[in-house]
Amino acid sequence: MNALKQIIESPRFEAAIIALIVVNAFTLGLETSQRAMAAAGPLLIVLDRIILAVFVIELLLRFLVYRLRFFRDPWRIFDLAVVAIALVPATGNLSVLRALRILRVLRLVSVVPSLKRVVGGLVAALPGMGSIILLLGLLFYVFSVMATKLFGQEFPDWFGTIGHSAYSLFQIMTLESWSMGIVRPVMEVYPWAWLFFIPFILCTTFTVLNLFIGIIVSAMQAEHEAEATAERSALQQEQAAILTELKALREEVRALRGAGQP
Amino acid sequence: MNALKQIIESPRFEAAIIALIVVNAFTLGLETSQRAMAAAGPLLIVLDRIILAVFVIELLLRFLVYRLRFFRDPWRIFDLAVVAIALVPATGNLSVLRALRILRVLRLVSVVPSLKRVVGGLVAALPGMGSIILLLGLLFYVFSVMATKLFGQEFPDWFGTIGHSAYSLFQIMTLESWSMGIVRPVMEVYPWAWLFFIPFILCTTFTVLNLFIGIIVSAMQAEHEAEATAERSALQQEQAAILTELKALREEVRALRGAGQP
Amino acid sequence: MNALKQIIESPRFEAAIIALIVVNAFTLGLETSQRAMAAAGPLLIVLDRIILAVFVIELLLRFLVYRLRFFRDPWRIFDLAVVAIALVPATGNLSVLRALRILRVLRLVSVVPSLKRVVGGLVAALPGMGSIILLLGLLFYVFSVMATKLFGQEFPDWFGTIGHSAYSLFQIMTLESWSMGIVRPVMEVYPWAWLFFIPFILCTTFTVLNLFIGIIVSAMQAEHEAEATAERSALQQEQAAILTELKALREEVRALRGAGQP
Amino acid sequence: MNALKQIIESPRFEAAIIALIVVNAFTLGLETSQRAMAAAGPLLIVLDRIILAVFVIELLLRFLVYRLRFFRDPWRIFDLAVVAIALVPATGNLSVLRALRILRVLRLVSVVPSLKRVVGGLVAALPGMGSIILLLGLLFYVFSVMATKLFGQEFPDWFGTIGHSAYSLFQIMTLESWSMGIVRPVMEVYPWAWLFFIPFILCTTFTVLNLFIGIIVSAMQAEHEAEATAERSALQQEQAAILTELKALREEVRALRGAGQP
Repeated sequence: MNALKQIIESPRFEAAIIALIVVNAFTLGLETSQRAMAAAGPLLIVLDRIILAVFVIELLLRFLVYRLRFFRDPWRIFDLAVVAIALVPATGNLSVLRALRILRVLRLVSVVPSLKRVVGGLVAALPGMGSIILLLGLLFYVFSVMATKLFGQEFPDWFGTIGHSAYSLFQIMTLESWSMGIVRPVMEVYPWAWLFFIPFILCTTFTVLNLFIGIIVSAMQAEHEAEATAERSALQQEQAAILTELKALREEVRALRGAGQP
Repeated sequence: MNALKQIIESPRFEAAIIALIVVNAFTLGLETSQRAMAAAGPLLIVLDRIILAVFVIELLLRFLVYRLRFFRDPWRIFDLAVVAIALVPATGNLSVLRALRILRVLRLVSVVPSLKRVVGGLVAALPGMGSIILLLGLLFYVFSVMATKLFGQEFPDWFGTIGHSAYSLFQIMTLESWSMGIVRPVMEVYPWAWLFFIPFILCTTFTVLNLFIGIIVSAMQAEHEAEATAERSALQQEQAAILTELKALREEVRALRGAGQP
Repeated sequence: MNALKQIIESPRFEAAIIALIVVNAFTLGLETSQRAMAAAGPLLIVLDRIILAVFVIELLLRFLVYRLRFFRDPWRIFDLAVVAIALVPATGNLSVLRALRILRVLRLVSVVPSLKRVVGGLVAALPGMGSIILLLGLLFYVFSVMATKLFGQEFPDWFGTIGHSAYSLFQIMTLESWSMGIVRPVMEVYPWAWLFFIPFILCTTFTVLNLFIGIIVSAMQAEHEAEATAERSALQQEQAAILTELKALREEVRALRGAGQP
Repeated sequence: MNALKQIIESPRFEAAIIALIVVNAFTLGLETSQRAMAAAGPLLIVLDRIILAVFVIELLLRFLVYRLRFFRDPWRIFDLAVVAIALVPATGNLSVLRALRILRVLRLVSVVPSLKRVVGGLVAALPGMGSIILLLGLLFYVFSVMATKLFGQEFPDWFGTIGHSAYSLFQIMTLESWSMGIVRPVMEVYPWAWLFFIPFILCTTFTVLNLFIGIIVSAMQAEHEAEATAERSALQQEQAAILTELKALREEVRALRGAGQP
């Protein structure tokens, strides 16, 4: 078992897996080209199946070695999910499942350390933003319900249901065609519609801006803290040296005092 | 009265209010669905009325407990306003008032502490930005009057009145269809129109950018100040220790001097 | 002369000027409304002329008091320019000059201290950005010439001359309709056009981003420097106290030494 | 050889090259104007050839002086490339190569020190962003393959091949016409398409945002480090002074002790 663990954690094994993922990315990309499929279709499919089999075996080995610890690492669950997609018998919504096979290439993130660190950093920034994301969700819900009630009857394509409204408001939040595409036509029926949409734009962009600022500030704080600690410790070491020197001096004065009073 | 205060401020009471708001959000959302209304319309309306009644009673209780202090807390006035909307007899512009009932869900912000803190932070960032918002308002007014005078006659839909111009300029500031939608058509009549619009875009986006930077800087400053204070105090404590040690040493030398000169 | 200076610099005089500017903003705004002009047109025009006369007298007084120092303050030159616009005999391009009269309202910036500070800050941020603005200008020139040579013949409206190209590229830099409006049609004629436009977008947005970052960093640096200086001086005062104490101690030891060696 | 080196590195020579580049920028710009070409076409072309010859000679001189060190400086290779473009016999895709001649004006960046510093800074910020750019590339590849498989058959213009998909997704990432132009039409055929596009927008904009934040943080860190070092050294100098004083004091006490114990 330990031998197996050593193999799995060896840099060579990792490099082989990375190489296989890259080859797989390439074959899956080629499968979208009709010319490539006509020329070497069966080969590409066989190659894809072989690589898939290797991945399944690799995950089985990892499971054998790590047992239940396997499921504690979120990256492993991610690996399992993207490999499992290809194993689901693709019958009904066949084309969608086939398209999802390319997600397997995202395993690169869990295998290459620098990518893992970057994605880990992005994901780690999210929980601190929980409240502001909740607030944004609340704003979207309230404005979607209002938009559905206010404009749903006249503009069913854009505001017919809460879902349609949420999608349209998301588009408006990204400022895509918000005025020429949506608000000006609505204002031809409801001239006061801007009283609804402009506050929505101001509220949501200001909230999203604060989401960004929160991420910037926390990133800088982390950076700054490490640096400040280093700086502080340099000063404190010097201060400790001064204190040591002082204490030695005091000892000497005390000795002098003892010698002077025989 | 104190017993009442204890009930109102108890976590249980708060949790019950949060639960009611969430249920209310759900029923108000369902009211937008025709299928839900056909299936359970009267039930939804009754539920909504009951929850509204509970909210009215809650606010009355709070008023009884806090008296005039009730009006000092802006969150209470906000609560009062969003509940009061539903009590206004909805006759004329009926549908709009009905749509505004969903604003009641925003009470969640005033009840959930983490949301309250986030919104409080966003609102607190505004006053420091007063001058820059005033400047932006001034820019908009000046450019709106100019646009109305320059392009109002030929493009009444976009620049017919100061209001129309302000709306169109807001759209241009968000960069939505500014060129293809507005400026290129205007330039076909007035070829020098870009001399008006491009400086407008540069001025307003630069001002908005500085609004953002102001918020970022003040957020970071607050963060940094707390940290710097902690750092400084650690160093100062050490310095105080050095000073104490020095003074003790001086005392000892003085004693030595007294002993040496009998 | 001193009495005149005292009047001009008194808060009352300033408040009166601010009030006049606000009234003028209002009358100039009303002039855009046909209804207001029909009801009180002559009154508005007379009011505007009176206020203009007051402004002219005010600037003359300032000139009498400050003489040539008047021209050293850029805000005064700004005041002079926006007032002078209204005095130019508006004959030929009459409507444009009339429209520019509203610029007079921008005098508010030079009179209200908080606005003056904000605009001063914005303008002060520019020189530090000189190199990056020059770089952006260079990029625009090079890409405009290339676009004119590459696409000018087929798309004269967008890329016919360097001026047209620069305008279109500015639009593309703001990402307005860049793909659907411009690049996709161009790619139907020149399929490799994306090799020109996507690098342009990446280069210019990255440069503009760095312009923003430069402003953010310099704003934060100024903020941080003031703070750091305060922090440092607190620590340095303590260190100076330690040094003084040490020197006094040394003096005492020296005295002791003198006393012990009679 | 040393004399040649002195000439090449003299400010006069540099100023002459800058002047020639600016003149060349001007003549190349005028070549796009049909009127200028009709009036002074041959003159412009001769001028351009002369300046090109001067540049070739300049680069030869530099090569003679610096030999192989010439190729170590990336700016020199850049200079060589933009000058070499004009020397390639322009036969086939003639107009494109002619258009590229304007790139020569970018030599200004390698000659003017402040521009060189700015561009150097921009380029230096890139390697630190390597992982995040790789991640963005991976996301683009995965989503492009998926989009091609999912929507390629129905929308060949937008998602027919991986290349088309990557271009369309880049457009969607810049938020240009993403909804009205692309996603709404796609949703008419595949109503669940938003489940593909909205996660794509959220993922890529969040990643790009983090790219920006990374650049901001590293820029500020560099700024802050220099400052903090200066601050620290001021405090450390004082501490060193304290330590010196202490040591002198200890010496004196030791001397006293020696004198008191004869």
